[in-house]
Amino acid sequence: MASPGSGFWSFGSEDGSGDPENPGTARAWCQVAQKFTGGIGNKLCALLYGDAEKPAESSGSQPPRATSRKAACSCNQKPCSCPKAEVNYAFLHATDLLPACDGERPTLAFLQEVMDILLQYVVKSFDRSTKVIDFHYPNELLQEYNWELADQPQNLEEILMHCQTTLKYAIKTGHPRYFNQLSTGLDMVGLAADWLTSTANTNMFTYEIAPVFVLLEYVTLKKMREIIGWPGGSGDGIFSPGGAISNMYAMLIARFKMFPEVKEKGMAAVPRLIAFTSEHSHFSLKKGAAALGIGTDSVILIKCDERGKMILSDLERRILEAKQKGFVPFLVSATAGTTVYGAFDPLLAVADICKKYKIWMHVDAAWGGGLLMSRKHKWKLSGVERANSVTWNPHKMMGVPLQCSALLVREEGLMQSCNQMHASYLFQQDKHYDLSYDTGDKALQCGRHVDVFKLWLMWRAKGTIGFEAHIDKCLELAEYLYNIIKNREGYEMVFDGKPQHTNVCFWYVPPSLRVLDNNEERLSRLSKVAPMIKARMMESGTTMVSYQPLGDKVNFFRMVISNPAATHQDIDFLIEEIERLGQDL
Amino acid sequence: MASPGSGFWSFGSEDGSGDPENPGTARAWCQVAQKFTGGIGNKLCALLYGDAEKPAESSGSQPPRATSRKAACSCNQKPCSCPKAEVNYAFLHATDLLPACDGERPTLAFLQEVMDILLQYVVKSFDRSTKVIDFHYPNELLQEYNWELADQPQNLEEILMHCQTTLKYAIKTGHPRYFNQLSTGLDMVGLAADWLTSTANTNMFTYEIAPVFVLLEYVTLKKMREIIGWPGGSGDGIFSPGGAISNMYAMLIARFKMFPEVKEKGMAAVPRLIAFTSEHSHFSLKKGAAALGIGTDSVILIKCDERGKMILSDLERRILEAKQKGFVPFLVSATAGTTVYGAFDPLLAVADICKKYKIWMHVDAAWGGGLLMSRKHKWKLSGVERANSVTWNPHKMMGVPLQCSALLVREEGLMQSCNQMHASYLFQQDKHYDLSYDTGDKALQCGRHVDVFKLWLMWRAKGTIGFEAHIDKCLELAEYLYNIIKNREGYEMVFDGKPQHTNVCFWYVPPSLRVLDNNEERLSRLSKVAPMIKARMMESGTTMVSYQPLGDKVNFFRMVISNPAATHQDIDFLIEEIERLGQDL
Repeated sequence: MASPGSGFWSFGSEDGSGDPENPGTARAWCQVAQKFTGGIGNKLCALLYGDAEKPAESSGSQPPRATSRKAACSCNQKPCSCPKAEVNYAFLHATDLLPACDGERPTLAFLQEVMDILLQYVVKSFDRSTKVIDFHYPNELLQEYNWELADQPQNLEEILMHCQTTLKYAIKTGHPRYFNQLSTGLDMVGLAADWLTSTANTNMFTYEIAPVFVLLEYVTLKKMREIIGWPGGSGDGIFSPGGAISNMYAMLIARFKMFPEVKEKGMAAVPRLIAFTSEHSHFSLKKGAAALGIGTDSVILIKCDERGKMILSDLERRILEAKQKGFVPFLVSATAGTTVYGAFDPLLAVADICKKYKIWMHVDAAWGGGLLMSRKHKWKLSGVERANSVTWNPHKMMGVPLQCSALLVREEGLMQSCNQMHASYLFQQDKHYDLSYDTGDKALQCGRHVDVFKLWLMWRAKGTIGFEAHIDKCLELAEYLYNIIKNREGYEMVFDGKPQHTNVCFWYVPPSLRVLDNNEERLSRLSKVAPMIKARMMESGTTMVSYQPLGDKVNFFRMVISNPAATHQDIDFLIEEIERLGQDL
Repeated sequence: MASPGSGFWSFGSEDGSGDPENPGTARAWCQVAQKFTGGIGNKLCALLYGDAEKPAESSGSQPPRATSRKAACSCNQKPCSCPKAEVNYAFLHATDLLPACDGERPTLAFLQEVMDILLQYVVKSFDRSTKVIDFHYPNELLQEYNWELADQPQNLEEILMHCQTTLKYAIKTGHPRYFNQLSTGLDMVGLAADWLTSTANTNMFTYEIAPVFVLLEYVTLKKMREIIGWPGGSGDGIFSPGGAISNMYAMLIARFKMFPEVKEKGMAAVPRLIAFTSEHSHFSLKKGAAALGIGTDSVILIKCDERGKMILSDLERRILEAKQKGFVPFLVSATAGTTVYGAFDPLLAVADICKKYKIWMHVDAAWGGGLLMSRKHKWKLSGVERANSVTWNPHKMMGVPLQCSALLVREEGLMQSCNQMHASYLFQQDKHYDLSYDTGDKALQCGRHVDVFKLWLMWRAKGTIGFEAHIDKCLELAEYLYNIIKNREGYEMVFDGKPQHTNVCFWYVPPSLRVLDNNEERLSRLSKVAPMIKARMMESGTTMVSYQPLGDKVNFFRMVISNPAATHQDIDFLIEEIERLGQDL
């Protein structure tokens, strides 16, 4: 079979996408020629257009489509040396880009063109006059475009159009009125760092292939442990693919610490293990228990008070109950910032109980960990320094681009013992550098994405005080929202009192429901209000906020603020929008 | 506590990093002023420099450091409207960027500046006259720079310098002479797609916040299943954070299929489960078994023949042995492309055995899956269509940027049943769109990084035939290397015969060893040759290739070719370089 560069490409275009509108003869030939790889294609094309050096960047020919790129450079030099001037992407294919011979110029032009599309999107993301979302139902989106994958290549003009189309329907997660998830906002330094990470395109398993990133992970995790309050920042940790995996790591390590034989022998060799976490905790604890062969029945959900905090007496009662049954309590996962209420479990008291019963204390601070950066709010995590492990997701409250989740462990070396498999093709013991920087074997993964650089670079750019300012501002905005709606007609708070985190949970009660008694029918109708408003919100695309039921509470809005672009005016807007969209319900 | 924009920033710079060299008075004041957030800082600075509109982009002042950015635009227009002209980044901080008021222009300039740094790196990556690696020992790198995280922010000039420094010490994984891992190369369309993914900054759990990406995952996984050979592309799947996690998923789902009660009850409720995989298989099978509570002792390693293929008689014997002991064989993981030898287990025969004993058949084609794209080479995976699940990492042989790993499952719905936890805050059942596109609950993760877009966009740009051409070329290069060294003086092949994948395993025997008898001493000395050459290779930075011992074979080189930039000349270079660096050993 032919190799690239020797006419391998078929001339036909199975999906018709390579067919320009009414091509002239030379242009049609050129387009065919361009389906060869860079060198040959360019030379053929050059013959047709008479420019031996820059055939793809035709200066005389008409672009074959109305969407062809125009020169974006405003320089007056002739010939223009700016890389992106007058490139006709309809004549170029991926095979014309680096590492193709003569690929440098088209590559720079193409990447610059992509960058322009991205920069436009970035600017639009922060523009309140644009929609947060241009919503289409799945069927509509599937039918409106041909997303299918074909045998034949598309030209770079089509590739650039796909970039534009993809962004057209993307959710602007950096938009000042996007409040839908715990991760919102688009940090410019973080974005730059993520672009760099993509460009470096490497893997965290060894120092050999990621020297700087491995060192930065070391430096950053140590700093996070210092902030948690472990002496001298000692301990261990890893950046994992999200909070759920970080929590699973904690469970895995806690089990190993108590019963190291589980690694070889499996759960059959150990007694029944029981984990405890609150009924408001994140579902990943159960997910982890299912995966690890512990079973979801062995995750005991401890009752919460009306603010969503774990009730300590219930925790101790359930621990004793488990022990009486002959089971082994091995983990308490306290939550610092629950997903819905934003509640902080009483960590100091949980630590006392864990100490008393010799149980591994994990703190799931995926959402609340950011508050450790604030001198004003970190008291809410008092006791976290007594934890054995902590999940902390900088991609949530600290605004780091997705994904960036850390699992911090107080005892050094445990992760390595728990997970290492000594693969000799990666972790050769006779390398010429200090092997303690080959950290890959402590991971559950083999290859691991570089998640640290964006956090590290943002931290350098903002300083700890920059994160602090961001977090204090978000909490202030949440309080602002709370103060507006707590006594406003048509609103009911899901729980009383000032929010501890930025979660503000409330029902909007449309006028038609305000007159009803608080009975089944009213609850049934109220449960439909938030989904209806949310659907209208998405269709109008003006803002996004989440809702859900919880326990015996019917659907309510859960407002969360982690978006650095949000202002008081955006909070005002949200309220007006809920009322505009919901008043007739 | 004050919120940002009201003078929150401290004026001092604890780490001294904000202190320019001999600042003039106005400049010093301006720098202080810039520590305020955008609006105020800009206005103060503007007063000093007399430009009310563009204070940060001072035209008259000297940059405070020799490294300050110069205007890169070559346009002659005055005033220049190009965003990056004459911006002095030493006067700018992250707080001057969007969403700051008036943040658009500095943001565009800053991101463009970053892009220029990245583009330079991209071009250098493909330049054979540059080093693959500028190697420094961990201690040197730690001491040479201050990587520490501080309370105070750094200015954007320093941030840009960090980007340059990070790339200076990065491994050029796209360099034509980088052969160190299974993932090599830097695809320009893939890179553009990854930049777009970062910019969209969203999460795969729901259609609501990732509509296009969710649809593209659906389309792409279906296409991959078609290529595997499942009728109509039916089945299920997910992009996971790497092959190790994909393999763990397979194990998890296989266990659930046989004993669904394990989800609630844990491993205590099921008999002892046994998995089978070859002794040359990837270590992630054992890692997964340890994590899932199955235990590494329950992963039976089947013997391989001299080419690294699983021996079927040993597989059947060990299955019977396990059954006789009352254990339950639940999974056979065949490998299609082993990590070191690149061997393909005989999948059809494995499928027969799995059928006979009713065992889940998994194929770990993380490395070899790419060969399915080649009409010439896909026969090596014959029988993969009979697998129950397949791991296939497009980030390896298909050159997609890291990370991009898929787990494909033949039976639809199983992943969902196995992993779902019905979190009502994410997967509300009363949404207004088709909920089958909310795919997040079938994942082990909660949040999940968008890994699909780069594969999808590359596929559009190359077509299936483009991937085919790349793979055929890499295999041809491997054969070229094999043909050169198989009879060359000083080389011994680790196994005989033409490589099935691009793995070429060999010893380089320096002249001093060629005269020795094949005894213990020779083996001991030979085992030190590859590490020594590798260390010299990294120090000279000219190329990178991996080595390891395997079984009773002492350290040998494992050459793998997945790099689209590599040519015959680069293979020649590698051989010359090994001989140059190793001839005196």
